[in-house]
Amino acid sequence: MKITVWNEFRHERTDEAVRAVYPHGIHRAIADHLASIEGFEPATATLDEPEHGLPQALIDSTDVLLWWGHIAHGEVSDEVAERVQSAVHRGMGLIALHSAHYSKPLKRLLGTSCGLSWREDDLHERLWVVDPTHPIAAGVDRYFEIPKTEMYGEFFDVPCPDELVFISWFAGGEVFRSGMVWKRGRGRVFYFRPGHETLPIYYQPEVLRVIVNACRYLGPRDTATVTGIGAAPQAKVSPEAGR
Amino acid sequence: MKITVWNEFRHERTDEAVRAVYPHGIHRAIADHLASIEGFEPATATLDEPEHGLPQALIDSTDVLLWWGHIAHGEVSDEVAERVQSAVHRGMGLIALHSAHYSKPLKRLLGTSCGLSWREDDLHERLWVVDPTHPIAAGVDRYFEIPKTEMYGEFFDVPCPDELVFISWFAGGEVFRSGMVWKRGRGRVFYFRPGHETLPIYYQPEVLRVIVNACRYLGPRDTATVTGIGAAPQAKVSPEAGR
Amino acid sequence: MKITVWNEFRHERTDEAVRAVYPHGIHRAIADHLASIEGFEPATATLDEPEHGLPQALIDSTDVLLWWGHIAHGEVSDEVAERVQSAVHRGMGLIALHSAHYSKPLKRLLGTSCGLSWREDDLHERLWVVDPTHPIAAGVDRYFEIPKTEMYGEFFDVPCPDELVFISWFAGGEVFRSGMVWKRGRGRVFYFRPGHETLPIYYQPEVLRVIVNACRYLGPRDTATVTGIGAAPQAKVSPEAGR
Amino acid sequence: MKITVWNEFRHERTDEAVRAVYPHGIHRAIADHLASIEGFEPATATLDEPEHGLPQALIDSTDVLLWWGHIAHGEVSDEVAERVQSAVHRGMGLIALHSAHYSKPLKRLLGTSCGLSWREDDLHERLWVVDPTHPIAAGVDRYFEIPKTEMYGEFFDVPCPDELVFISWFAGGEVFRSGMVWKRGRGRVFYFRPGHETLPIYYQPEVLRVIVNACRYLGPRDTATVTGIGAAPQAKVSPEAGR
Repeated sequence: MKITVWNEFRHERTDEAVRAVYPHGIHRAIADHLASIEGFEPATATLDEPEHGLPQALIDSTDVLLWWGHIAHGEVSDEVAERVQSAVHRGMGLIALHSAHYSKPLKRLLGTSCGLSWREDDLHERLWVVDPTHPIAAGVDRYFEIPKTEMYGEFFDVPCPDELVFISWFAGGEVFRSGMVWKRGRGRVFYFRPGHETLPIYYQPEVLRVIVNACRYLGPRDTATVTGIGAAPQAKVSPEAGR
Repeated sequence: MKITVWNEFRHERTDEAVRAVYPHGIHRAIADHLASIEGFEPATATLDEPEHGLPQALIDSTDVLLWWGHIAHGEVSDEVAERVQSAVHRGMGLIALHSAHYSKPLKRLLGTSCGLSWREDDLHERLWVVDPTHPIAAGVDRYFEIPKTEMYGEFFDVPCPDELVFISWFAGGEVFRSGMVWKRGRGRVFYFRPGHETLPIYYQPEVLRVIVNACRYLGPRDTATVTGIGAAPQAKVSPEAGR
Repeated sequence: MKITVWNEFRHERTDEAVRAVYPHGIHRAIADHLASIEGFEPATATLDEPEHGLPQALIDSTDVLLWWGHIAHGEVSDEVAERVQSAVHRGMGLIALHSAHYSKPLKRLLGTSCGLSWREDDLHERLWVVDPTHPIAAGVDRYFEIPKTEMYGEFFDVPCPDELVFISWFAGGEVFRSGMVWKRGRGRVFYFRPGHETLPIYYQPEVLRVIVNACRYLGPRDTATVTGIGAAPQAKVSPEAGR
Repeated sequence: MKITVWNEFRHERTDEAVRAVYPHGIHRAIADHLASIEGFEPATATLDEPEHGLPQALIDSTDVLLWWGHIAHGEVSDEVAERVQSAVHRGMGLIALHSAHYSKPLKRLLGTSCGLSWREDDLHERLWVVDPTHPIAAGVDRYFEIPKTEMYGEFFDVPCPDELVFISWFAGGEVFRSGMVWKRGRGRVFYFRPGHETLPIYYQPEVLRVIVNACRYLGPRDTATVTGIGAAPQAKVSPEAGR
């Protein structure tokens, strides 16, 4: 499976505290783990590369794209955002991580403001499984914990998900729908809340396990072949209708 | 209830066959009926007016916006499309009619290609109710018919709806999810398939009844007041969490 | 609107601590409040009355039925449980409160085990609104609190709801989908988590407000008239199909 | 994968016209095909065997159960119906075929009347794919046809499905949601409309392909292990909550 891990990659180059946690960038931390999974072929791409590292050819060969962004959502070109959206329509999976809730590709695919409430408090979080046989929750018990986290709270302004997998509990008093799947065209989108640039969350085994599960779930399916969207037999009735 | 009926209003001015059916435009045909409903205050707007007839002040005072477009979707400015999208996020209802499946506001709100198959055959259509207590189907029996119609067929590339109200049967052999509701932010969107510029569908009582029902359903609700999206108490925990 | 508040009414007669909180029974506490709402006509019924206080005639004239049970679910006759289920199919609303998650009518309507985890700890609970324009959440801000509560935790084994309104946060570390709506036939079911026999939760204004909202939401609709379920024209095609 | 094909097996023994089409019973026609699929181990069971052929041990080792019934739903014991329901809760897949819409196991799992309209007219049917990447539709193009069929029409009184895969078009003028999935506990249910005792529909390759797809989709998943439903740590807070 061809996986591309995209990262804005700004914090890690300008902020010492972030570099201390992710010295080679969040994309590399995640991609290094994915490279250890049999059958996964991860590549990486970042904002400041030409075409943000996402030329059409790479997108066309990507099965699942992971997206991390935070302070530079506005610098992503509309052209690349549309390229990602269109690839999802044709079947690519998209995993939007944490602060990518405000990323252009996710907002274009969901159609809402994607707003939420938040607080940096370094308290702990529990992700409860509310769909225990969902493949994305495979291997997770009733819940798992993140010892120190940034809080994201409801109301999270997204469409009702097609599948709700995790609900987070925060020590500070909030809840959040932390794992959600939406179908869009032939592709699917998974939003996964955990992560923060100053916390080592993307090294935590449970978090990586969910990401691996999600790659498998969003990856290529042996699917129906729907041809001819946008066209129809121009005879008065479809060929077989009168038989 | 303040309702604005928007129409591209091109066919009716250039095509004699269309003008014969809708001499003052599709928007006027619909608005004239809505004006007969107690409590409804319909206005109209068209593409070639300044700001497409949809200045911010009109949008801000509109409870439900109806949208008809067909050959000039691309001429709608991104600014106005975003204005409509944003108004839905804040609570405005949007009813997208027939060929508005490809309109900019709908595509922005749904996030998919909104493609479908189609055929002009002037055969008949039946809209079956699959959610018989849905307010949008009030007053409709098991189904209603449109004697001559343009066919729209599946696969219709939209997100799984929050509410599926009608499924169409076409004499030529196709089916279509013809009435669907999606929540987006504080507002809701209703896609309603019937209609065509050369057929008198928007004079048919059953069709008008559904449109009236939908205006009521998407109109203002006595709703919860969710304040502070995008912010959260910046204390370590929310005020009451430790009590 | 005709509302019937059903209560098992056992604890209150045998347990001094419960009687201290609900001296006339939980049903009376709720019904007394409903009686103060314009247009509401509440009646009550309890387990140990003939037919559990729910003869067919009362069910037939009930718009919304509230159900509280805890220690005697098994004593409810299958006949009465089926009577309630059937009434929901024909359009009655059902509100299942707290420990009614294990009640016969709810289990028959949902088809699952309705299991959950729980703990009596008298810690506090927050109910967060995740569908802020839902009529059941009208008048609630981002969340409301219950100072002392019994905990109910996920996984809650119910079908994916048609509408998810509230998610609870518990001080002890759990989350729970606390307000959910399911359509069943022409009727609807609302499960609402708060409540406990030894805590004065059914006197709390926010809880009563949600119950009132739910009665309105589940009550009679001006609905479509779907006739003839179970029959179809026995001609080869429906009458109009060939026209 | 262990598959059990259950059949009422009455028509085939008493009605010459049925025996001509399914000489060894509908169960054998389906099971014979399933036996040709690598990894599938089909068994059969029928109503008039002891315990309807479904002793607890067989149910416990069944991954997916197919159910056909028509004229003898009422003869299925409540005990066996509950055994099937309970097995689905624990993870077994259930495929309800055609007239099994009124079967006890399906009605118990869905909670509705499962009524529909119908007509024996031997006209043709088209099943349109409305979720083109759904695994159950794998290998199907935009639609497939059944040359002669019994009509089932909306309104079909079932809960809103978690996944809607097929919508049928009937030459006589009706539509029907013909392929739907519901989650129930750890298991899933697929209702598939095609089939009739006097028509050779269960020999048609497209129909068999969908049944095979559905067996794979409902079969065992590598799933999360949710332990302890019905219990919770009885300490005031969960162990890690205060860390």
